[in-house]
Amino acid sequence: MKAYLGTVSGNSYKLRILLGLLKVPHEVVIIDLKNREHKGAAFLKINPRGEVPAIEDNGQVIWDSAACLVYIARKYGGEQWLPTDAAGLAEVMQWIALAATEIQCGLQYARRGVLQGRWTLGSLEDGQNFGKVALDVCEAQLGKHEWLALDRPTIAEPACFAYIETAPEAKVALEPYPNILKWMERCRKLPGWAAR
Amino acid sequence: MKAYLGTVSGNSYKLRILLGLLKVPHEVVIIDLKNREHKGAAFLKINPRGEVPAIEDNGQVIWDSAACLVYIARKYGGEQWLPTDAAGLAEVMQWIALAATEIQCGLQYARRGVLQGRWTLGSLEDGQNFGKVALDVCEAQLGKHEWLALDRPTIAEPACFAYIETAPEAKVALEPYPNILKWMERCRKLPGWAAR
Repeated sequence: MKAYLGTVSGNSYKLRILLGLLKVPHEVVIIDLKNREHKGAAFLKINPRGEVPAIEDNGQVIWDSAACLVYIARKYGGEQWLPTDAAGLAEVMQWIALAATEIQCGLQYARRGVLQGRWTLGSLEDGQNFGKVALDVCEAQLGKHEWLALDRPTIAEPACFAYIETAPEAKVALEPYPNILKWMERCRKLPGWAAR
Repeated sequence: MKAYLGTVSGNSYKLRILLGLLKVPHEVVIIDLKNREHKGAAFLKINPRGEVPAIEDNGQVIWDSAACLVYIARKYGGEQWLPTDAAGLAEVMQWIALAATEIQCGLQYARRGVLQGRWTLGSLEDGQNFGKVALDVCEAQLGKHEWLALDRPTIAEPACFAYIETAPEAKVALEPYPNILKWMERCRKLPGWAAR
């Protein structure tokens, strides 16, 4: 399996976490985000959306971080990291969705604006407010459960972790979310969990 | 199964489409979005994120439109609408992700701004530009394939259809996307496909 990743990309980090947890042999191809390689003709043939990460396995290309997590979990993790029964799969999917919407378009785009001056969707305050919806939902869940879904680690963890960890770079402090902070420590202790 | 829906909600419409395609018996509970019932204490107990749709089945609550689609497809649609093998599930997931990010936070939030004056994430132009990334990716895919994933209708169709159909309300014309227009016609002809 070939993994197309960016060195500062949180969406790429999600894959590095799962690949580490499941000890999946893979080759890394670094895409030079700084020089906009992800928007160049060669990479757009791999991912027409123009974003890292993407993976290539047995001739099939999968783009989007959640889709890549799903592929890796189903191929290498059995039912543990992503079950296939209706209730289990849907419960994990709730958090994948939160990661794709409020966390990505809120926390991550606010962070990217601060770090790179690129404001894709609105102001810092817009992004912070949108992202805080996700933090509130996660904080409440993690007050009642140790993990986001199914009372065990699943791909919901890497999906949500990456851009929650970097919330302070979007000028959103995590101290008001003690349950999230404790969950992050539990995540980091999982065998094979990659550092950022 | 109980489905909590809003009458003008495109995310609710996604569920109505799949429930119709699969002929799933269900009870509809209308949440009064105009009077912000989705942000009230009673509904927040069902969905802490404060959004429709949600479903309740056998005592389990699932929130988020994609998670609800996943639940319904797995419970009532066998492998047809959402397969469980790594490659198939991941391919569908790519389009679910596009629906949750560029289509939701681009096309839908731009539309909501125009219709309701609520600008969650940036300006009309921000939302249009972000949404057009998804339209370009869909247009290219639908130039090569009749359906978004797996060369057959899957839950990728309702997931992406709802807020692509309403793109003109976000002042994004669909005429420059002839493959998308033809795909929308194919979708509407599927037996049981609900009108908006």
